[in-house]
Amino acid sequence: MNRGLAATVIALMLCARPATAQDLVADTAAVRDRAIADTTAWDVLESLTTEIGARPVGSPALARARDWAQAKLKALGFTNVHAEAFEAEAWIRGEERAEVISPYPQTLQVLGLGRSISTPKGGLEAEIKLFKTYDALLAAPPGSLKGRIAVVTQPMVRTMDGAGYGDANRNRTRGAAEASRRGAAAYLVRSLSTDDTRLPHTGATHQAEDAPAIPAAALSVPDAELLERMVARGQPVRVRLNLQSRTIPKAPAWNVSGEIPGLTHPEEVIVVGGHLDSWDPGTGAHDDGAGVAITVAAARLAGVGSPRRTIRVVLWGAEELDDSGEAYAVAHRDEAAHLILAAESDTGDGPVWQAKLPKGSRDHLAMRAFALAVGPLKVIQSREPAGIGGSDVAGLNALGVPSVGLTPDASRYFDLHHSADDTLDKIDPADLAQSVAVWASFLNAVAHSDIDFRALAAP
Amino acid sequence: MNRGLAATVIALMLCARPATAQDLVADTAAVRDRAIADTTAWDVLESLTTEIGARPVGSPALARARDWAQAKLKALGFTNVHAEAFEAEAWIRGEERAEVISPYPQTLQVLGLGRSISTPKGGLEAEIKLFKTYDALLAAPPGSLKGRIAVVTQPMVRTMDGAGYGDANRNRTRGAAEASRRGAAAYLVRSLSTDDTRLPHTGATHQAEDAPAIPAAALSVPDAELLERMVARGQPVRVRLNLQSRTIPKAPAWNVSGEIPGLTHPEEVIVVGGHLDSWDPGTGAHDDGAGVAITVAAARLAGVGSPRRTIRVVLWGAEELDDSGEAYAVAHRDEAAHLILAAESDTGDGPVWQAKLPKGSRDHLAMRAFALAVGPLKVIQSREPAGIGGSDVAGLNALGVPSVGLTPDASRYFDLHHSADDTLDKIDPADLAQSVAVWASFLNAVAHSDIDFRALAAP
Repeated sequence: MNRGLAATVIALMLCARPATAQDLVADTAAVRDRAIADTTAWDVLESLTTEIGARPVGSPALARARDWAQAKLKALGFTNVHAEAFEAEAWIRGEERAEVISPYPQTLQVLGLGRSISTPKGGLEAEIKLFKTYDALLAAPPGSLKGRIAVVTQPMVRTMDGAGYGDANRNRTRGAAEASRRGAAAYLVRSLSTDDTRLPHTGATHQAEDAPAIPAAALSVPDAELLERMVARGQPVRVRLNLQSRTIPKAPAWNVSGEIPGLTHPEEVIVVGGHLDSWDPGTGAHDDGAGVAITVAAARLAGVGSPRRTIRVVLWGAEELDDSGEAYAVAHRDEAAHLILAAESDTGDGPVWQAKLPKGSRDHLAMRAFALAVGPLKVIQSREPAGIGGSDVAGLNALGVPSVGLTPDASRYFDLHHSADDTLDKIDPADLAQSVAVWASFLNAVAHSDIDFRALAAP
Repeated sequence: MNRGLAATVIALMLCARPATAQDLVADTAAVRDRAIADTTAWDVLESLTTEIGARPVGSPALARARDWAQAKLKALGFTNVHAEAFEAEAWIRGEERAEVISPYPQTLQVLGLGRSISTPKGGLEAEIKLFKTYDALLAAPPGSLKGRIAVVTQPMVRTMDGAGYGDANRNRTRGAAEASRRGAAAYLVRSLSTDDTRLPHTGATHQAEDAPAIPAAALSVPDAELLERMVARGQPVRVRLNLQSRTIPKAPAWNVSGEIPGLTHPEEVIVVGGHLDSWDPGTGAHDDGAGVAITVAAARLAGVGSPRRTIRVVLWGAEELDDSGEAYAVAHRDEAAHLILAAESDTGDGPVWQAKLPKGSRDHLAMRAFALAVGPLKVIQSREPAGIGGSDVAGLNALGVPSVGLTPDASRYFDLHHSADDTLDKIDPADLAQSVAVWASFLNAVAHSDIDFRALAAP
């Protein structure tokens, strides 16, 4: 053994923990315990929601968030901190107002949907045609909605795994296009919400390619029910809708990243993160300040003791309307083969209740260490392997980078998501800490081991 | 016995129940049971919130509510249905917007308070001075708030009996005056709310007589907490506040009433009701559509079988800002001696958990019949006698008319009160029916007996 090699071995013995399988199990459990007592995630989230608040693409706040993120990552000890600029679609809300004109004049609480076009100044007035299910809208014949405001009031179902959102999603994302194809002048959808507050929930919609773009907005849940009661009385219900907005086809946006460098295999990179942009009505606490905070805190905790691999946190800059993950995948295509894994946290504060591991990895020592660590945190190991990750990592996943699914309990998430109620006070510090502990345990097990998810997944 | 007298006696035997003490007990229990299964209150409330909605004094909706109330009372069989016009102060909300300008630009959710003056067009901008308690504001020296926006963020305590609102009330009603006396340019108060939604809760305030009137608004709870976190960072926090409104010193208002006439003693009148007007952001479901619905339904149920006394329902027209009860007391001063009792239901859908009976009446047969009926509905008989009733009957009570306190559980009421969330979907049909049953049992026992509360209260 020459002197250089000997020095390297000594350095590894000193720095690169853990040396044995038992060490990895014990070390991952220790990281979990430190995470439960750690307040970094809360502090990050408190800072983001207090000092920046809402940060949609196209707003000055997104540039402030970019600067905030870089300063925060540097202060927390990350290296190679930088912002990668790209261009993204921006939709900017203007004046919005809706009211029933007749037969029962009342104000309606609405929020325009991303990609809604503006009504004429002063609004448009039309009779509504109300559908209690999305399928009833689809059953309406071509031309049957001519000049009407189409309204879909199908409620969203509360579920732990987010299936209720998956089911209701088309009501918001596809309804405007389907209504326009049938001649509608505008579209209103019952908010994709599991709560009953008077706050509407916004979100992106798509316009039809084969029919005119139309104004589209979300009604608060009580207002959707109010319209149902009015319609049940049998007289035509006329609504005035004034929605103003503007779009910037190519607005500046940034994916901000920072790293905990690997000691022995720095070129093997684990990518995790959340998205930095948010919708405009709230302060982006659950969506996705929580994902930012959880992954930043978890990477830092897993990075103690010099892992063999690099942990990179990416805070994507344009998730809500555009596709910041696509820009990231294009920019990082050449290093995709070196990326061990890419995963996003984007469903609120938690707690994580289920882990879907990369295919074939369940019996590997590293994943056993992870499972042993998080079982006491009430995390089920799913029999299903991980699918494609969140929208910001789907581009990398499509390039062959494996993902992991650490599924948060979404039961309360859609009470708040995309509404003015997405604020810090709705974050449960214990749930947040549990999520950090699960992510930190996973990152620790992967970064301190040589687990090769691609090889394990091979048939 | 002449023929006329004989016919009268026969009529009384047929119509005027109950004839004995046992009859009164059994009859009151039967009214209770019918009330629990009766949907009149829900139907009335569904109609008011759907067909009229928000109905503040000064709005066209209040005139529609007047017409609605008369039509509804007639349809439900009430007689002598009419509206008594009077003049009331009106405060009408205009454009409202608040935002932190520096150091952390963010939008704030506010609702102007009744009697706020307007800011200059475009708003006023000033540094805030934040007080975590109302007493801290009171401790601020004269002149110390010169040019500042004073902010009080003391939270309201959730209580069953409404004591939390009683305690916090001065934060909203007196804070603007106290801030102005110390030189403040404007006043913001944490909403008097027990919920954590982003919806502010409005309400009336008073201006100082010895200092300038100033703009005043309620912050949503999360926004009050946001300002606390910003202030804790140590830099001056500057806010821009744009509040526009107008007042009508003498706007038209109406107290609408209808009667179930007494058979043998029609001149002995029991007055009950709720207030027809509401604040503007919600649809006045709990405040006070519920009181309207409960008392209308209860009077109708107790009026079955021709009570000896008259039951009059009054739907007062200007409770929120002005004093519809004062107008009513002035107009009905001459009949005060004939009014058996005057009581208002104005704390939401219930359930009623406590009865405070008129002084000295607890052992009277009629009140025993009432207590026997409502014990199974989980109603405590308080050892304290009734005090002055709600603000709409306080004027009559001051003229010597006794009152009763049928106390609803207010635990959830202040989640919704004076906010956009005061909508029909927040009404619990079972709680509403329980409240109707308690009021109907009480009215039945009083209207079918000869209980004389004034005599029982005499020393």
